[in-house]
Amino acid sequence: MNGAHSLVRTLLRAGVDTCFANPGTSEMHFVAALDQVEGMRCVLGLQENVVTGMADGYARIAGRPASTLLHCGPGLANGLANLHNARRARAQMVNIVGDQATYHRPHDAPLTMDTASLAHTVSGWVRVSTSAGEVGRDAAAAVQAARALPGHVATLILPSDTCWDEGGAVAEPLPALEAEPLDPNQVERAARVLRGGEETLILLGGTALKAPGQEIAWRIASATGASIMADFVTGHVARGRGRLPMARVPYAPDAAREALGRFRHIILVSAKPPVTFFAYPGQPSIEYAEDAQLHILARKEQDPVAALTALADELGAPPAAMPDPGPCPEPGSGPATPEGLARTVAALMPENAIVSDETISYGRGLYQETFAAPAHDMLHLAGGAIGDGMPVATGAAVAGGGRRVINLQADGSAMYTIQSLWTQARERLPVTTIILNNRSYNILIGEYAGVGATPGPTAIKMLDLGNPDLGWVQIANGMGVEAAKANTLEELADLLRQSFASPVPFLIDLSI
Amino acid sequence: MNGAHSLVRTLLRAGVDTCFANPGTSEMHFVAALDQVEGMRCVLGLQENVVTGMADGYARIAGRPASTLLHCGPGLANGLANLHNARRARAQMVNIVGDQATYHRPHDAPLTMDTASLAHTVSGWVRVSTSAGEVGRDAAAAVQAARALPGHVATLILPSDTCWDEGGAVAEPLPALEAEPLDPNQVERAARVLRGGEETLILLGGTALKAPGQEIAWRIASATGASIMADFVTGHVARGRGRLPMARVPYAPDAAREALGRFRHIILVSAKPPVTFFAYPGQPSIEYAEDAQLHILARKEQDPVAALTALADELGAPPAAMPDPGPCPEPGSGPATPEGLARTVAALMPENAIVSDETISYGRGLYQETFAAPAHDMLHLAGGAIGDGMPVATGAAVAGGGRRVINLQADGSAMYTIQSLWTQARERLPVTTIILNNRSYNILIGEYAGVGATPGPTAIKMLDLGNPDLGWVQIANGMGVEAAKANTLEELADLLRQSFASPVPFLIDLSI
Repeated sequence: MNGAHSLVRTLLRAGVDTCFANPGTSEMHFVAALDQVEGMRCVLGLQENVVTGMADGYARIAGRPASTLLHCGPGLANGLANLHNARRARAQMVNIVGDQATYHRPHDAPLTMDTASLAHTVSGWVRVSTSAGEVGRDAAAAVQAARALPGHVATLILPSDTCWDEGGAVAEPLPALEAEPLDPNQVERAARVLRGGEETLILLGGTALKAPGQEIAWRIASATGASIMADFVTGHVARGRGRLPMARVPYAPDAAREALGRFRHIILVSAKPPVTFFAYPGQPSIEYAEDAQLHILARKEQDPVAALTALADELGAPPAAMPDPGPCPEPGSGPATPEGLARTVAALMPENAIVSDETISYGRGLYQETFAAPAHDMLHLAGGAIGDGMPVATGAAVAGGGRRVINLQADGSAMYTIQSLWTQARERLPVTTIILNNRSYNILIGEYAGVGATPGPTAIKMLDLGNPDLGWVQIANGMGVEAAKANTLEELADLLRQSFASPVPFLIDLSI
Repeated sequence: MNGAHSLVRTLLRAGVDTCFANPGTSEMHFVAALDQVEGMRCVLGLQENVVTGMADGYARIAGRPASTLLHCGPGLANGLANLHNARRARAQMVNIVGDQATYHRPHDAPLTMDTASLAHTVSGWVRVSTSAGEVGRDAAAAVQAARALPGHVATLILPSDTCWDEGGAVAEPLPALEAEPLDPNQVERAARVLRGGEETLILLGGTALKAPGQEIAWRIASATGASIMADFVTGHVARGRGRLPMARVPYAPDAAREALGRFRHIILVSAKPPVTFFAYPGQPSIEYAEDAQLHILARKEQDPVAALTALADELGAPPAAMPDPGPCPEPGSGPATPEGLARTVAALMPENAIVSDETISYGRGLYQETFAAPAHDMLHLAGGAIGDGMPVATGAAVAGGGRRVINLQADGSAMYTIQSLWTQARERLPVTTIILNNRSYNILIGEYAGVGATPGPTAIKMLDLGNPDLGWVQIANGMGVEAAKANTLEELADLLRQSFASPVPFLIDLSI
């Protein structure tokens, strides 16, 4: 058995049965093994940032890792931005990168790069296999590392001779690594703060934002009067009816400071202390009050649900029914507004939908208007590197097994990984993309105003996307996806109903 | 003056007057400075690999660096593959990357990455400015480094506070760094080999492949009977009438070994010893005879034209008229073939055109058929990371000041940086793109055969680009570029004539 066969069989045995790929010459033996060993679903992306973004979206919905297959250093380089996002979203991923054969590398052939250095910038675990006999063992270790809390990008670099040489051995799955144990002092300190009655925020991150974590957090809040918010930097929030109608820390620094400034204590549950995305002249980096006290209930390597449970028990917090978010909104009407868009999507989305949110400047009213929508999973851009909305939607649909995916997609960001549409068409995935077409990098126009200057022609040229306007319907059609324009929320609603009734992808170019 | 203003003024003073950009929030003060200081042409790309590829193409034609403007680690990450190609092409580039403010970095805000580590993988020079007062000086040093032989990607990382703080100072241009001196022994050794009369190849790389280097190499070859070839790994070759009708080392290992195997000596002129792109089981890495002797006439840090001149003088080689390549070919007819495509392009291209060659599997007959074309510059994919053909064409057109650019573009590679078309439309650049549409990663289908297996459904799914077929005309139209299909070489010729008569971009979807 060659190394490549041992790799595929080891991955399958460890439960990794989906491979997002853009292979090259140095991965041909892996491709052959995928062909010859049954059981791996292979999904092609036409550029590597689509591939890595799909693997991220898959993991966020499946709760287990897919593998990637990337070609040498440059293939990894192309996929780095969405690996960065996956890292920030704490997604599980077995990131497989083919590379020059061990003995060929010293010749510095053209595609040779410092692949390992690139991998280290985005990975929680990196290994370079050095012989066919190690590949199975290394693959099992990669799966184990990917699945360890809080979820990691585990990058396995495979020189091509480790794949084609004989001597491969299938490895048994390694046991799951346990979460780091809770510290009873952390729980007691949090309880003491909550009993003290000062303004306290419980800030949820990571897997605390799934439904079970929300329920226990709500028990605690109901018993103590504490507030609950979702970290801004998060890849996945369970939302809609039956879930907690909680706010997310705002993106805009002023709004974040307003939302957080009143709290004397912040209890961090698998969340980091909130800081601004960027620094601004004369403004602080932190978004909470300077004299607020931060208390860590669970580090990201600890189980946040176990920590919340221990805290609720310590407080003797009784069960609490989740708050009623009120009636589901009606679809909006007239020209698009952020709130009208959110209400229209909330009104029409089917039960158990997945929303891939790369709304950037337009999505700031989204949360409030979708509390009463049917239960859904919301996937956010956690790392800030634009271009993950479309591939994450695509990978989520692969994992979703027929669940409707709604991609709320800013136009500038869409152009980063527009090739995703082709994979949606090829795999016949139920993804409905709404392009929020404002013909600009609108967020930057706002940021430019912060510089204190009026943009002149050179600046405008770097911030607007008109001249020429992008023809989204043509672009989508060219990649095999049906598409239409919507100029009003009524037109949007009609197209959404039509798309939700069909199992294939569809794109709506919404003028905003 | 703030740091950003000192940056723009220093770049302009050093002759860098073109900036390919995709800025973000942390670069807004640089954008404001570009707006407020006159003289910099700013060209927006809709994804960073387009931006870096354009800067590469610009430098190859202009012979001097442009600057880029990239957004934080993720923006640099997105542009790395074409920085890798630029490095292999030895292009000059001042690669400017904005980043988190110095005091904000420790907070590990979402977009924070190890920017410097990423930069080191592709750059010949990296510096992180640490205060506004250093920015001008650092920018002058970056330009100097970019221009040093053989040409470098010089990456300057600018934390945002170094741009907005006052205290910036414009720096004077630094003197050009001289080439490393020639070693007379290198010249004498090469002369001795050539006088010995054994089968000898003069292998030209880097700037030796411009017209002056070719002329002197031909003098030497005419006087000694040596052969001349162009390195495969090269970004730029002067070709057509008046230039040397020389072959390029073939890509395919068997063909390369056949072309190189007879030589007892290889004289390397700013070229590296030829090795295969990839290793293959049981095959050698080197493409020349195991017992051939390699002789370095010029390392890449030395001036290859000076070295060739010294060698010609040492040999007393008299002037030699360049060989006549014969009549210019006629356009081809019937279904497309590699040779027919090459003849059609050769027959119709205007004088002084630029060809951006990302033909991959289809271009192997290109050289032979275009020896007698009008004089032109041929730009090749030097680093092997697919996706440079379209942005290099775009940047070359920006530098070309109206020169016609012909982009021979494989379909799979085109999808990597398809956003280039939008910039071509916005800037109204005279780029004619010919998509070589074989609906597959054809080179990989050939490589898969080398594994010794017949591709089954899983492998085919990862190697073909059909299902759905890409609609190139729709995609181009959606990005503002007119386009049409050609099913025969006659149709291609008609569309080429039409495009060459118009100053705006055009795309031809050629069925092959």
